[in-house]
Amino acid sequence: MIKSRCIVSIDDVSDSEMNEIFDLTDRMNESLESGKSITTMKGKILATLFYEPSTRTRLSFESAMQRLGGSTLGFSDVKSSSVSKGETLADTVRMAESYSDIIVIRHPLEGSARLASRFTAKPVINAGDGSGQHPTQTLLDLYTMKKEFGKIDGLKIALIGDLKYGRTVHSLLLALSRFKVQVTLVSPPSLRIPQHIISKVKDIIKIEETDVISHVLPEADVFYATRIQKERFTDQNEYQSLIGSYSIDSELVSQMKETAIIMHPLPRVDEINPSVDALPQARYFKQAYYGVPLRMALITLLLGGEN
Amino acid sequence: MIKSRCIVSIDDVSDSEMNEIFDLTDRMNESLESGKSITTMKGKILATLFYEPSTRTRLSFESAMQRLGGSTLGFSDVKSSSVSKGETLADTVRMAESYSDIIVIRHPLEGSARLASRFTAKPVINAGDGSGQHPTQTLLDLYTMKKEFGKIDGLKIALIGDLKYGRTVHSLLLALSRFKVQVTLVSPPSLRIPQHIISKVKDIIKIEETDVISHVLPEADVFYATRIQKERFTDQNEYQSLIGSYSIDSELVSQMKETAIIMHPLPRVDEINPSVDALPQARYFKQAYYGVPLRMALITLLLGGEN
Amino acid sequence: MIKSRCIVSIDDVSDSEMNEIFDLTDRMNESLESGKSITTMKGKILATLFYEPSTRTRLSFESAMQRLGGSTLGFSDVKSSSVSKGETLADTVRMAESYSDIIVIRHPLEGSARLASRFTAKPVINAGDGSGQHPTQTLLDLYTMKKEFGKIDGLKIALIGDLKYGRTVHSLLLALSRFKVQVTLVSPPSLRIPQHIISKVKDIIKIEETDVISHVLPEADVFYATRIQKERFTDQNEYQSLIGSYSIDSELVSQMKETAIIMHPLPRVDEINPSVDALPQARYFKQAYYGVPLRMALITLLLGGEN
Repeated sequence: MIKSRCIVSIDDVSDSEMNEIFDLTDRMNESLESGKSITTMKGKILATLFYEPSTRTRLSFESAMQRLGGSTLGFSDVKSSSVSKGETLADTVRMAESYSDIIVIRHPLEGSARLASRFTAKPVINAGDGSGQHPTQTLLDLYTMKKEFGKIDGLKIALIGDLKYGRTVHSLLLALSRFKVQVTLVSPPSLRIPQHIISKVKDIIKIEETDVISHVLPEADVFYATRIQKERFTDQNEYQSLIGSYSIDSELVSQMKETAIIMHPLPRVDEINPSVDALPQARYFKQAYYGVPLRMALITLLLGGEN
Repeated sequence: MIKSRCIVSIDDVSDSEMNEIFDLTDRMNESLESGKSITTMKGKILATLFYEPSTRTRLSFESAMQRLGGSTLGFSDVKSSSVSKGETLADTVRMAESYSDIIVIRHPLEGSARLASRFTAKPVINAGDGSGQHPTQTLLDLYTMKKEFGKIDGLKIALIGDLKYGRTVHSLLLALSRFKVQVTLVSPPSLRIPQHIISKVKDIIKIEETDVISHVLPEADVFYATRIQKERFTDQNEYQSLIGSYSIDSELVSQMKETAIIMHPLPRVDEINPSVDALPQARYFKQAYYGVPLRMALITLLLGGEN
Repeated sequence: MIKSRCIVSIDDVSDSEMNEIFDLTDRMNESLESGKSITTMKGKILATLFYEPSTRTRLSFESAMQRLGGSTLGFSDVKSSSVSKGETLADTVRMAESYSDIIVIRHPLEGSARLASRFTAKPVINAGDGSGQHPTQTLLDLYTMKKEFGKIDGLKIALIGDLKYGRTVHSLLLALSRFKVQVTLVSPPSLRIPQHIISKVKDIIKIEETDVISHVLPEADVFYATRIQKERFTDQNEYQSLIGSYSIDSELVSQMKETAIIMHPLPRVDEINPSVDALPQARYFKQAYYGVPLRMALITLLLGGEN
């Protein structure tokens, strides 16, 4: 159904397509767990055009394509690409089109992925473009919630940390507004979510804002933590005190419901203490793992491997 | 026929071998278009030893090998290779020989590929060595002309731009002298083709030189543009004015024959205006695309996959 | 037998497991020579986490996995990895676990590979951790001796060069103490093997130390040379004179037994003169070649592909 389309923003995916992706992700997951080798993408090539490094995202896509029997090529660094000779994005995308069947692009500038998709008839997946979207991250975030709770409707979700600059939570909040959820935004006043994001969802789902994490601890089903980036702060003392207030440790977890789950897009630095890793609420590694079957499903649907 | 041989210079390929390569390229092209998966190189490995980055060439070889069912390994940057520990080219090639079935080498120094081929019994393909040759580029240039016009004999070909430093046009001109063609060399006086190249071909094919591009517009069948590199000029005003004179835009194209084709080894910067991309004469993206089936054919012949 | 285990140190491999690895290496070697394609690792992924570059080791593992029909992914440079965002080794290993079936790690700090193996249930192979171990190098060193002489017991082995900093010879000497061999340690006084290594083996096997290479020339069966690193010396004149004394050239080889073999972990710089390459005693390229079938055997045993 979504065959040959581009996935630049989560808005490119309709509700029914999202269900289709999640259903196929379930089946891919089962295949992975059974250890059965899949070969539906044999002879197909996925190109990774990474204008900025993102090992986690790149390897997740490569793993997904290889698990489907396909292969991968690309660059993970601008310095070793034709870009350093002054080539335009359009020409680089046309090159990738000649050499592959599906293109994954990561670029520091917002709008790059959309632009790229205009220059090729082959499917383009946005793997993050600056402060823009990163739709496969949003899909795997939603999939994790659905997988762990059976459904997303009815969940109480706390988004925690840097909500101002964190691209991940912007996309996630917009996507969550498609479901019947209650969201609490937990951030220091200086890192509050931008008003233009809030205004898009505040009439659709119930939103609360707070700067005190303890308020949400006993209630939320999902704690979605994000990285607070040191480099955002001119005053490093301010950073240290904030990290202290918004970091999740086992003491905080003890105040959560037993059925609650903790998520994080990774990599994490100080936002979640390693002592939490062994607790039943920790779900961020599983969330990262779901990135592979989810991307397997997406590649399969975009290339029509199920037809 | 060319099984187990090295392709360091276009002179390593006889006329009949060139025909053999082009015929197999046609068949590879058909396979690609039909979407049929080929597995003749299953279990075979192509090594890319890139001592300087060239994304386009590297990915084209990787795509070709993967489209044949084989796999690839190598390095695209000297910094992350054993070379940084002082290893000789000979030893690095012997390493590649142990790990692969066919070796593609790109090196900043002329003669490196020939040297490399002496230290291994496995086929070596030169993917550009300094101011030396880049034979697969020349083969795909010739293939594009043959494919688009049915034959190369009889064509009027204009080579345009930096003919002094442009390795690509040197190889191409030498190779064109095997055919019954007329060549016009269009360049600023300061970037004229070296005399030693001219002297090799001037008694065999008809050559003219000019610095005014308008002279060739109504006549030529093939316009082969090359990059004029900014860094060749100490006076940037001179560069700007030259680029203006030798850049192909839609105005210039309107003076060309409708059946003419415009080629470029890519990446391009200012030599061809993006407005030309949609015109019927533009053939540079198709030319780049032919790099994959051509390299598929070459790998197949060198490894004897058709036997 | 060693299925699902980690190979961090050569001590992780028992005598009977070593025999099992060597027997399977023989069979892999035969497969490679017959050109028969193996597909036992189809659908399986090997991850290479290289926190410092080592082209030779990385490509040898990649070649081994590809020769088995599997595929590879990873990073070869810290700069383009999540590590630059402050991710811990533990989290990076958990990422690799989600994306692959077996993990190869190279890290500048001793103990990293052991640490890494604690955070994943998947097999981890140490590909060198600082001044620590590099067990697959040791295995292929031992395999080479066994292959060339039929057995290791009874051999007279000279270890030559930088025995102080050379990780390779430390591991090798410890491993050799499992066999009935005589070892002569040949090094300049300033680069003698550390006493703590000697003390582990001196009561088990016969060890001699000398700084004059000529003493061992007529007697030894195996000459194992290692790189003397320029950067260890503040006085470059001292380096030059040492290199002269410990470098193997054809004059030295003429004093060796005809059946003797010369080994080197590679890359070499000045320790073995290129004139030696063509002599019957030279075995360092073959030794490097054995790295592929040996790693094929190890991957197969760790992933249970023979079951």
